Amino acid sequence: MDIEDTSADDLSAVLDSARRASTQWARTPRSLRSAALDAIATGLETANDDLVSIAIEETRLTEARLRTELTRTCFQLRMFAQYIAEGSYLDVRVDTADPNWPMGPRPDLRRVLLPIGPVLVFAASNFPFAFSVLGGDTAAALAAGNAVIVKAHPGHPTLSRTTADLVTAALDETDAPERLLQVVFGTEAGVQALQAPAVKAAAFTGSIPGGRALFDIANARPVPIPFYGELGSANPVFVTRAAAEARTQDIVDGFVASFTSSSGQLCTKPGVLFYPTNTPMHDALATVELPRVHRLLNSSIESGFDAARRSIAEHADVETLTERHDSLATEPTTTLLSTTATAIASHPSLLHEMFGPAALVVAYESDGELFDAITQIDGQLTASIFGEENESIVPELIEQLSGIAGRVLWNQWPTGVSVTYAQQHGGPYPATTAPTTTSVGMAAIDRFLRPVAYQNVPQQLLPHELKDSETAVRQTRDGR
Amino acid sequence: MDIEDTSADDLSAVLDSARRASTQWARTPRSLRSAALDAIATGLETANDDLVSIAIEETRLTEARLRTELTRTCFQLRMFAQYIAEGSYLDVRVDTADPNWPMGPRPDLRRVLLPIGPVLVFAASNFPFAFSVLGGDTAAALAAGNAVIVKAHPGHPTLSRTTADLVTAALDETDAPERLLQVVFGTEAGVQALQAPAVKAAAFTGSIPGGRALFDIANARPVPIPFYGELGSANPVFVTRAAAEARTQDIVDGFVASFTSSSGQLCTKPGVLFYPTNTPMHDALATVELPRVHRLLNSSIESGFDAARRSIAEHADVETLTERHDSLATEPTTTLLSTTATAIASHPSLLHEMFGPAALVVAYESDGELFDAITQIDGQLTASIFGEENESIVPELIEQLSGIAGRVLWNQWPTGVSVTYAQQHGGPYPATTAPTTTSVGMAAIDRFLRPVAYQNVPQQLLPHELKDSETAVRQTRDGR
Repeated sequence: MDIEDTSADDLSAVLDSARRASTQWARTPRSLRSAALDAIATGLETANDDLVSIAIEETRLTEARLRTELTRTCFQLRMFAQYIAEGSYLDVRVDTADPNWPMGPRPDLRRVLLPIGPVLVFAASNFPFAFSVLGGDTAAALAAGNAVIVKAHPGHPTLSRTTADLVTAALDETDAPERLLQVVFGTEAGVQALQAPAVKAAAFTGSIPGGRALFDIANARPVPIPFYGELGSANPVFVTRAAAEARTQDIVDGFVASFTSSSGQLCTKPGVLFYPTNTPMHDALATVELPRVHRLLNSSIESGFDAARRSIAEHADVETLTERHDSLATEPTTTLLSTTATAIASHPSLLHEMFGPAALVVAYESDGELFDAITQIDGQLTASIFGEENESIVPELIEQLSGIAGRVLWNQWPTGVSVTYAQQHGGPYPATTAPTTTSVGMAAIDRFLRPVAYQNVPQQLLPHELKDSETAVRQTRDGR
Repeated sequence: MDIEDTSADDLSAVLDSARRASTQWARTPRSLRSAALDAIATGLETANDDLVSIAIEETRLTEARLRTELTRTCFQLRMFAQYIAEGSYLDVRVDTADPNWPMGPRPDLRRVLLPIGPVLVFAASNFPFAFSVLGGDTAAALAAGNAVIVKAHPGHPTLSRTTADLVTAALDETDAPERLLQVVFGTEAGVQALQAPAVKAAAFTGSIPGGRALFDIANARPVPIPFYGELGSANPVFVTRAAAEARTQDIVDGFVASFTSSSGQLCTKPGVLFYPTNTPMHDALATVELPRVHRLLNSSIESGFDAARRSIAEHADVETLTERHDSLATEPTTTLLSTTATAIASHPSLLHEMFGPAALVVAYESDGELFDAITQIDGQLTASIFGEENESIVPELIEQLSGIAGRVLWNQWPTGVSVTYAQQHGGPYPATTAPTTTSVGMAAIDRFLRPVAYQNVPQQLLPHELKDSETAVRQTRDGR
């Protein structure tokens, strides 16, 4: 498929349509929005063989991985469909009038979350389904009641166009407004859309430099808009002394499987592992057999990986523990690098993400050294502990890691982010540009909603979820 | 009191203390944090006569107004104290492990909101209690579990210092960490604090240019932080035809009382009123007697008001309907200006905020003209309708106004913002820089919290609110 960049004229039509569609969609009852999300999921499922084969062609990812990802994508749509039908996400708060309120008579106040308006989503390269045209950001924004414009990732243009066409066909069978989801192509169109007054929020998954550039554009607008960027993360893993002794091989094998999964192209790839000296860990890491991995997504990812890997590997305090380079020049060099916690304390840039199948292992002598290193760690999506329940270091470790990461794991690997009610995929910068939010899980919908309170508005003029007669949606009344 | 600007050395000590205090405060049980907030309220109440007399001296506001404001400030602290003791604000979500989760086995995931870290609060001039040292932003940030640094407003330095000292004395009697609340003075110290790595979020109430400049600094940091700015708002009022005929004098009198209250120095002052032609409204507005008002807060506000008032009054499409200038040259000229909806459609800048006792009334011929004008209105804190329940225009008017304002009022005036569970004080830019949040009401606490999910963490290592045994805090389990 030959897909041209979106022209300025076409973009203008896209923006106008998005504005109209968003207004209409916001007024569409939740039950119908819910049904439309289900219809999209069915549309994608029905075409799954076609979608997966296009994705294999364009992304070099494996069929098994892509099928799982498509399942996740459809599951996510259906979960949001249920979630909005149920309605507690509206966070309805009703304070009835109270003449005896201690700060003076209180008016009747009723608060609800309304759709924020057209949302621009920048698709990622590494999840051609789950973080692309119909990925998590799009699902959350649509569920919230907004039209969506997706800036397609150049890594999978045909898949992007095909997905969008399937969605449009599915939505045509529902009560959804026309052009509710639209796709634009090209960097220029993406930047222009981000600057357009019609766009009220934007979401992004990708690299730190790319995300930061777009964040800066969003904030420099005459009318700035929320920009939800999920950028980069090293996802450090911390192995305690007891665990290092009790479960050496299990931990090493799990680590290698996790950091090489999808050729290491996962935002939650565990890129750094801290382990105690004088345990069998070092030898086990040095002698582990690295698996063969598949090619990286595209040449830009390839060169980025190579540069990141080299810059850390060539540091004076880093040695290459083991690497695997298969005969095909097209496959990346799977690499395990090694350094010490004292080196990290002086050179925190050693912790920078290497997007691909490489990781750095860090030897620490003492708990004090470990905690010193932690103070050097930037914001992270995840931090994982492999430990034993009764070790004295553990409570403080959990406490410290909850200060730098959005998700803290115990004896599990961070790859494979489940879509659930309680999931949190976020973290302090540079993990994300919006540390108070999540981009995976049901709470992701909050990013695309804005609160409005109605004061003294008669019952028949209120949105029905705010009325006294509402029984389906949970209302917090007078704080209870 | 002679108060010098905070030096760079002193600021450095403030930042170090804030970091330490924040860590300690975050670990302080909610019951003790709650008790400390109550103790602050008691400390302020006990000193209320002193505080009010200093405030009268420094702000020119009336004693009655200041006493009400101090009551509100203490009430707000006590309400947050109750709110955090109850704990539902933690938004606890528990998803137990589920091997049959449709997208693949689900791990045990438990999500909670944790304190974001030290918060910098820029105090406002117009509310020397409620939006200053111990105002809403500070109360919300402390309640959330963060240390606070307040950049004092130069309009009331002695009051700022006195308030901070009272708070410190009150906190010394509790288990709160040392230097939990600190005050810095001077523009340079404020900017440096905003750029400091120790500061994790900032809040501001003030003018559009001032707030925008700080917003830009917060976003330009190597590690950007959330900036919650409440800037400016014209708070338009819409009088329907039926209301204009039925309640002319009531509406005009209420309008004048509301826009001249506190000499018009309120962020929710109704600065613009739309009314239908061919009703008694015009004559009632032209002949209304404007009340005498007191001096504005300071010379900077005085010159700003004068410039804003003149720039609109001198526009070719604007006439001065009535004005009052009292003998004292120090009092502002209370002013009612008049224009038409068609003029607004061409010149939306006529709707810019005049911070002081002036308002613009706008005549509209038809409903269509009114809706055209609404499309020109920027983001607002509030929008008010004076109408009759059965008028056909009303549902669409509510719908449109909920799209541009954070609070929509029916037959009430927007001044006097009650602190309640459902209050919403926010809105699209330029009303605020963070349209998904509020700066008044219990939901204001959300701005200073960040979510963390714990995966597969054993019961005894979890924060107690996430444990299965927790009975005091509401948990959403498996989405229910």
